[in-house]
Amino acid sequence: MAGNTFGNVFKLTTFGESHGVGIGGVVDGCPAGLKIDMAQIQIELDRRRPGQSDLTTSRSETDRIEFLSGIFEGVTLGTPIAFVVRNEDQRSEDYADLKDVFRPGHADFTTQNKFGIRDYRGGGRSSARETLARVAGGAIAKQLLSQWGVSVHAFVSSVHQVVVPLPYTQLDLVTTYESLVRCPHAETEVKMIQRIQEAKNEKDSVGGIITCVIQGAALGWGEPVFDKLNASLGHAMLSINAVKGFEVGDGFSSTLRKGSENNDTMTTNHDGGIQGGISNGKDIVLRIAFKPTSTIGKQQEALNSNGEMVQLEASGRHDPCVLPRAVAIVEAMAALVLADAALLARTNKI
Amino acid sequence: MAGNTFGNVFKLTTFGESHGVGIGGVVDGCPAGLKIDMAQIQIELDRRRPGQSDLTTSRSETDRIEFLSGIFEGVTLGTPIAFVVRNEDQRSEDYADLKDVFRPGHADFTTQNKFGIRDYRGGGRSSARETLARVAGGAIAKQLLSQWGVSVHAFVSSVHQVVVPLPYTQLDLVTTYESLVRCPHAETEVKMIQRIQEAKNEKDSVGGIITCVIQGAALGWGEPVFDKLNASLGHAMLSINAVKGFEVGDGFSSTLRKGSENNDTMTTNHDGGIQGGISNGKDIVLRIAFKPTSTIGKQQEALNSNGEMVQLEASGRHDPCVLPRAVAIVEAMAALVLADAALLARTNKI
Amino acid sequence: MAGNTFGNVFKLTTFGESHGVGIGGVVDGCPAGLKIDMAQIQIELDRRRPGQSDLTTSRSETDRIEFLSGIFEGVTLGTPIAFVVRNEDQRSEDYADLKDVFRPGHADFTTQNKFGIRDYRGGGRSSARETLARVAGGAIAKQLLSQWGVSVHAFVSSVHQVVVPLPYTQLDLVTTYESLVRCPHAETEVKMIQRIQEAKNEKDSVGGIITCVIQGAALGWGEPVFDKLNASLGHAMLSINAVKGFEVGDGFSSTLRKGSENNDTMTTNHDGGIQGGISNGKDIVLRIAFKPTSTIGKQQEALNSNGEMVQLEASGRHDPCVLPRAVAIVEAMAALVLADAALLARTNKI
Amino acid sequence: MAGNTFGNVFKLTTFGESHGVGIGGVVDGCPAGLKIDMAQIQIELDRRRPGQSDLTTSRSETDRIEFLSGIFEGVTLGTPIAFVVRNEDQRSEDYADLKDVFRPGHADFTTQNKFGIRDYRGGGRSSARETLARVAGGAIAKQLLSQWGVSVHAFVSSVHQVVVPLPYTQLDLVTTYESLVRCPHAETEVKMIQRIQEAKNEKDSVGGIITCVIQGAALGWGEPVFDKLNASLGHAMLSINAVKGFEVGDGFSSTLRKGSENNDTMTTNHDGGIQGGISNGKDIVLRIAFKPTSTIGKQQEALNSNGEMVQLEASGRHDPCVLPRAVAIVEAMAALVLADAALLARTNKI
Repeated sequence: MAGNTFGNVFKLTTFGESHGVGIGGVVDGCPAGLKIDMAQIQIELDRRRPGQSDLTTSRSETDRIEFLSGIFEGVTLGTPIAFVVRNEDQRSEDYADLKDVFRPGHADFTTQNKFGIRDYRGGGRSSARETLARVAGGAIAKQLLSQWGVSVHAFVSSVHQVVVPLPYTQLDLVTTYESLVRCPHAETEVKMIQRIQEAKNEKDSVGGIITCVIQGAALGWGEPVFDKLNASLGHAMLSINAVKGFEVGDGFSSTLRKGSENNDTMTTNHDGGIQGGISNGKDIVLRIAFKPTSTIGKQQEALNSNGEMVQLEASGRHDPCVLPRAVAIVEAMAALVLADAALLARTNKI
Repeated sequence: MAGNTFGNVFKLTTFGESHGVGIGGVVDGCPAGLKIDMAQIQIELDRRRPGQSDLTTSRSETDRIEFLSGIFEGVTLGTPIAFVVRNEDQRSEDYADLKDVFRPGHADFTTQNKFGIRDYRGGGRSSARETLARVAGGAIAKQLLSQWGVSVHAFVSSVHQVVVPLPYTQLDLVTTYESLVRCPHAETEVKMIQRIQEAKNEKDSVGGIITCVIQGAALGWGEPVFDKLNASLGHAMLSINAVKGFEVGDGFSSTLRKGSENNDTMTTNHDGGIQGGISNGKDIVLRIAFKPTSTIGKQQEALNSNGEMVQLEASGRHDPCVLPRAVAIVEAMAALVLADAALLARTNKI
Repeated sequence: MAGNTFGNVFKLTTFGESHGVGIGGVVDGCPAGLKIDMAQIQIELDRRRPGQSDLTTSRSETDRIEFLSGIFEGVTLGTPIAFVVRNEDQRSEDYADLKDVFRPGHADFTTQNKFGIRDYRGGGRSSARETLARVAGGAIAKQLLSQWGVSVHAFVSSVHQVVVPLPYTQLDLVTTYESLVRCPHAETEVKMIQRIQEAKNEKDSVGGIITCVIQGAALGWGEPVFDKLNASLGHAMLSINAVKGFEVGDGFSSTLRKGSENNDTMTTNHDGGIQGGISNGKDIVLRIAFKPTSTIGKQQEALNSNGEMVQLEASGRHDPCVLPRAVAIVEAMAALVLADAALLARTNKI
Repeated sequence: MAGNTFGNVFKLTTFGESHGVGIGGVVDGCPAGLKIDMAQIQIELDRRRPGQSDLTTSRSETDRIEFLSGIFEGVTLGTPIAFVVRNEDQRSEDYADLKDVFRPGHADFTTQNKFGIRDYRGGGRSSARETLARVAGGAIAKQLLSQWGVSVHAFVSSVHQVVVPLPYTQLDLVTTYESLVRCPHAETEVKMIQRIQEAKNEKDSVGGIITCVIQGAALGWGEPVFDKLNASLGHAMLSINAVKGFEVGDGFSSTLRKGSENNDTMTTNHDGGIQGGISNGKDIVLRIAFKPTSTIGKQQEALNSNGEMVQLEASGRHDPCVLPRAVAIVEAMAALVLADAALLARTNKI
């Protein structure tokens, strides 16, 4: 209800504030008997981890995960899998002057009004640091999906006005994580890095689009009415910090075609692998729009708790572009939705 | 779980197949003491009703709603509000030849594979006729919101390549329902009607975009993590038949701006009224992309249950453009999300 | 949330007030492909129906059920199964003088205070008439369970101080419904009828105990912690009107034995078929205590809405003993719990 | 779904195995602004802690709780409150010989069959050690309830055949925790201690009954149909290890009275403070039956994983009577139900 749990059968609950003791989560409903590759979970976390390059925030966290329950001799028990990652590089003092100022574009003002209190240090609960728990939970979902031959690949398809010029079918998605900006198209990658560096130099920020491709999903996942697979995927993606748009298949551009042009044949996939809210066996294709990071170094006006406008220059650490780190988050959220839909589909027939 | 219920505190469950006995729903969690304007509910249903003009399907339904419970002497009891609309113009025989054919772009193929059975008459449960129950449930949510000074207005902002050239702030949204195509910009309305007529004449179909504006929502609605207000709204909209894309505020176009340009000041609203997943008191602005109707009169290839490709010409009745009728659905889904968020927000503080 | 839905995967939502349009429900999550025996559902409803003999209320209702959705050519579609039973013998005028009086032992006072409004006619939503929707939903669950070899049998094991002297293993439970009081032990049945007649003649009422036996449940149903099978069964039974106690296996009497006496061997079943909250393959045995009907003809003191104590003689129709009619309700609730647990158990292992 | 979460608005999720890293939980939905008394939470945990006297298991655990999130400068943030208690005295080797044996009366056999795997060390997830997370979560609920003037008191009212001879109204419940066996009637306390010592000496165990009294609950908590307050309380209590029976008010003994005797007046409380599933402002009174501990030192027959019967003498540490430690658990579960019901009741009226 309070929105810290995601999923129906395969569920993830997350907890933790950016500058509190740590961030963690509980995966409930993961079937018993799944062999867990711990090293792989850490790899997924590392893909989201800050401080990987000078394109990301300078906050330095090792993000070592500790599992507290649910795994016995390397195998899931069917009981809740709890984990925690302790915060290390907290520097709460950096945020002391934000106690009474609401940063533009952030949750500071809305959180204060909703709850009458907030942990102002680095955004508290609304910090994107929360998403590391999603990556950990999603890593387990991925390992489950992998048993069923399902893979999830996301990549950065645009940064500001720099766009990958090819469809995903002409890219080698497996190479995405070799790229610092998580773009598997080498030429575009260079331009993206350049674009992010420019933004950084200007003490500004840029956004962009992540494309996510799910391959191998069985025919028949997703529920017909309110929990259409695309609706659950949309919910998942729109719950990620800074996301402002979501498309499945051709999305907005399908509005520019006629029905006779848009209806899929055996060889097209305008619908992005989902029809009537149910997976049809083709690749599931999503696009997710991230606004430019709200935290910028440039001076800007901000409201304070006295209702006055003051000048603000961000002193907290931040990313000039969140997309490279968000690729792992998008994959995690997609995996959570699919694992859940797959388990629920086991109850469809007598 | 099976996805026929929407909401947490204020919940709508819908039931019914397109050519079965009827379509209906149960609203649970509506607070007691709300005076219900029955005539207004029927008006909302009429806005979605087929057969309103020659731009819509020729299926003729009066869509008279019967309430079965939950309202006593015109006031809600706090108990479930159940209602049913009986199907009248069923003509199931029109669909007999679809028993063994899967219409392109529809849920026929996926439903058959998911459940091993389907009601093939007019799409059965996956027909957009299900959405009349959403409109009825949403009409109750609207009346609740209205008590709190919240209004919900949607309108057709594009049909195929015909686009309203002004921002919503320069339109009179109250006039939307005076327009057959639900476009409050007279000049564009004419072009839209023309565009839909062309599609109809070509036995083809067109899609488009609906914009939805929510005014008067209190500061503090929406939950911080997985159930961000935009995530719940996205879920709601993406669960409507034919929706393939969703944006809040500037959505995809915000990716083309820098942070310094995109961060909102007192007078801008790039974020569309939601920050950190919580309403900030400004107008909440959404855009929803509908693909062109999958059912078209034009001959096209379709798979049959023997795995063969056959030629199909739709004989069932259908809309060349669903957007005019979908405006009421979009408003209903928005209202359901907001009523739920508002009630849940009552538990935020001790 | 508002408590009108029961179950997780196999869910029943009920609606309706005692003297409103009707009582009905929606079963969601019933797997597709189940052949429904409609006549059997009506038989189950008839077992709960008022007016079956002069031992029950004189309210005369045929309780004919109409299905609105979810069943196609006699088989479940996997979509919501909605149904309604219209109220016929309403006589709301009998209740006019209860508008401002709160009947002792009833929900009148608490409902009025909770919601600020109530349908005072025959208890409104809190009337046991609501339970007919449970019987209908449970009848579907029973048919599903029957596919898996599971049977559910309940019977009246005590009325006031009249008690069946044998364990259920020495009774022929199949004969229960041949008995007007639903007691399969002929000698005791006679005494129970006599006891109920005496109460009726005295314008008083009596309670008693129903025993419920579930046979054929697979090993492994029920969840280990909060949703232990006994906890879900207890929740189900304690949600029935007038129930004040619940036991699984030997219940309270197990507190009078030592561990060495109480631990089950291959041939004993003190634990009632559930260990650690999970079914162990033995018979599941429950006992449910019903207080005497609160509505009595005898004059008694009652509070009115002015806060005064007034003399009340019940004029509404009522049962001197609800147990005979409650047997069908107990079976229905047990079936709902088991169908849900069985479906959920499909997700236990990879 | 997998049953590790309890509650609707105020929710507790628990995790952890008896001999794993630790036991913990996440409280979600606790309103913001609650000042938390950490010392009091530790006190509640200490009341459940093993090793308090020679009447309880010799397992020695300090049960120090660490909070991971949700509390900022001593006050709740409205975000998830996560906590963990690390296991210290694990001695897993004590359980090595239980790997292939299923202890009678325990969850060993059912867990193995349900999940195909189990953590056999001390019962794993099905160990009552899990309940410490309930006590921690319940301690937060209690502090919330305390703000509203609600208190929760439980005590041991019988051990085997030793019964407190007075109604709770003649006992000083505040003194319960001064008693090692949590019995506020000094004379009976002595007999209970003696009875437990006897059982211990015989390498046997005894059960008993806990009475729980909730005072100060507002009129109007609990939902009318499936989530009646007594149904939620029953669910809560029946989810505690070893509980086999539950009563509200006079429970089973109300079946021995007539309606005219049982209907409550201003001065009686046969219904135990709940009518129609809704609190009526009187004391809420519950009785919970615990079977004798299944783990006993006496030799008994047990099934092994080869399907053979073998002789078993428990070597793991255990309590000859769980009731003294269970008092804190009963209070915690009651508090969780009430906090949830109270918050949900905020949405009853417009």
